[in-house]
Amino acid sequence: MNTKRIGKYTLKFDSKPSILSHASVASKKESQGPLADMFDVINDDTTFGQTSWEKAESQMQKLAFHKALEKCELNLTDVDFIFAGDLLNQCVSSSFASRESQIPFMGVYGACSSMAETLILSSIMVDGGFATNTCAITSSHFCTAERQYRFPLEYGGQRPPYSQWTVTGSGCAIISDNQPNLPYIAYATCGKITDFGITDANNMGAAMAPSAYDTLTNFFADTNTKPTDYDLIVTGDLGKVGSDILKKLFAKDGVDISKTYDDCGLMIYDATQDVHAGGSGCGCSASVLCSYILNNMCNKTFKNVIFAGTGALLSPTTVLQGESIPSICHVVNIKID
Amino acid sequence: MNTKRIGKYTLKFDSKPSILSHASVASKKESQGPLADMFDVINDDTTFGQTSWEKAESQMQKLAFHKALEKCELNLTDVDFIFAGDLLNQCVSSSFASRESQIPFMGVYGACSSMAETLILSSIMVDGGFATNTCAITSSHFCTAERQYRFPLEYGGQRPPYSQWTVTGSGCAIISDNQPNLPYIAYATCGKITDFGITDANNMGAAMAPSAYDTLTNFFADTNTKPTDYDLIVTGDLGKVGSDILKKLFAKDGVDISKTYDDCGLMIYDATQDVHAGGSGCGCSASVLCSYILNNMCNKTFKNVIFAGTGALLSPTTVLQGESIPSICHVVNIKID
Repeated sequence: MNTKRIGKYTLKFDSKPSILSHASVASKKESQGPLADMFDVINDDTTFGQTSWEKAESQMQKLAFHKALEKCELNLTDVDFIFAGDLLNQCVSSSFASRESQIPFMGVYGACSSMAETLILSSIMVDGGFATNTCAITSSHFCTAERQYRFPLEYGGQRPPYSQWTVTGSGCAIISDNQPNLPYIAYATCGKITDFGITDANNMGAAMAPSAYDTLTNFFADTNTKPTDYDLIVTGDLGKVGSDILKKLFAKDGVDISKTYDDCGLMIYDATQDVHAGGSGCGCSASVLCSYILNNMCNKTFKNVIFAGTGALLSPTTVLQGESIPSICHVVNIKID
Repeated sequence: MNTKRIGKYTLKFDSKPSILSHASVASKKESQGPLADMFDVINDDTTFGQTSWEKAESQMQKLAFHKALEKCELNLTDVDFIFAGDLLNQCVSSSFASRESQIPFMGVYGACSSMAETLILSSIMVDGGFATNTCAITSSHFCTAERQYRFPLEYGGQRPPYSQWTVTGSGCAIISDNQPNLPYIAYATCGKITDFGITDANNMGAAMAPSAYDTLTNFFADTNTKPTDYDLIVTGDLGKVGSDILKKLFAKDGVDISKTYDDCGLMIYDATQDVHAGGSGCGCSASVLCSYILNNMCNKTFKNVIFAGTGALLSPTTVLQGESIPSICHVVNIKID
């Protein structure tokens, strides 16, 4: 019985599953950007003391998880479930990171929308009475992603101006039973797979923007709210190209989202950092959410935020086969009273 | 509040989320095995009328989903969520299969444990009041998996005797509000990631067996039951090597599981089919569950079944880097009154 839904697509979490704690990890390039002061853990290079980039990415997830636990004074044994995802084939950053934790593990794949997906599944577990504390965590690494999706770094391939730069970072949120005075997840709208025929693997923003438009439109309709009701509407990560398309899609409906709209991929780097259309990767929206956004919710600068995780379900194999890029967007509404 | 749990790890679904319908799809080799008469859709070759094996795998998921809907007389618009997974990088079989469905989609990755993971998440959604009908679906394809994980088929690489054969198949279950006289999901135990140091990518059975032992042991402890309480305990898919290890691990505890124990990888092919240690792949446990097992539950031959999905979270990249193979097992207890 759909007792925990409103409208056609939106889940409502009456028990207010709380974000008990959050932590972010970033690397050198991210620490030179506008959010430098917000990250909990920063490494001076991309290795995080490991011997491969894949291991470095797992290490980032471990650091984010342990920092988040430390901040809320929980132990590993207090966490009922880990929901984790990343960009690597077989989601190895996540599985290797959780290998020693001895916590029940559920792997998700939603490309850059994964952080939103882990938040939604965590909220469902807590609100549904299946868990007391869950961990929602994702990561990405520039060097692991480049060699998997595009070219070995040593090749020095040129990037087109509309390409995005995979963030080397991780974000972790601990979702718990309702606790007063903390940000909580009020609503969530899960996205459908959309495909508008983009076949250029570098143009992910254009592929994802229609997904973001679709799920956000469903969310506003189901909750009977409008963009100006929110302090911040943030996508993660459409970059410059996708963000402009999203604003235009809403403008066609006579809706101006630009007053409160931003994109994690545009927030994490500044114009001097030569990242072209902005940041991307599961670690981008996760690290921006678990630093700037949640920090500013905890101090009540923002009290009502839409976090829209957007993923290009891009595969190098299907792109070479001439297929277009399916995309998805999951929306999470985070509030603090 | 953990109101829907028993013991340390096990979820209990008091509302009895029902398996309203199930359907299976298989290819030529599977149709020559012992379960030939049980599959709903069989194709005479591995292409399913498509121009690539990746498209063929997506087509199998579409066929399984539509057949399952047809059997319970539901429309696409009646389904609230799809939980889907497969073995391909970026889970493309699942995302491309769901592209036209216009149904909210949650991608999971748990290798061959994915069918159990989608069943658990579907049950949580229904039992928690977040959905009326959900779809749990996975697939695998021998030809897509071989070229991704091992070698191009044209290479004709020799397979060691302990290797498993990826099933070309798909299974789909529609999980719904409690309905009388149908199989329902009573309990589920989510697994932790275990790693016993296996580094041979062909020896997945040995890598997964300790996971199966761990989650099954937790399930028996939490539910205060023993193997002989069940009509069938089925892993999916440990194959010959892993199944023997699992039986030995239980025997060490003085527990004999062999009377009611079987493995989907050993059920789907017979000894004459030259598959070495048995079947594997997300589509193996899914197609055996959604044919032989659920058919025999619907006719009440089996009334209390443990379905233990086992996944080797194997990555060609990390194997080449010398890493061992982390594994996971999720347990689902299906009953019919």
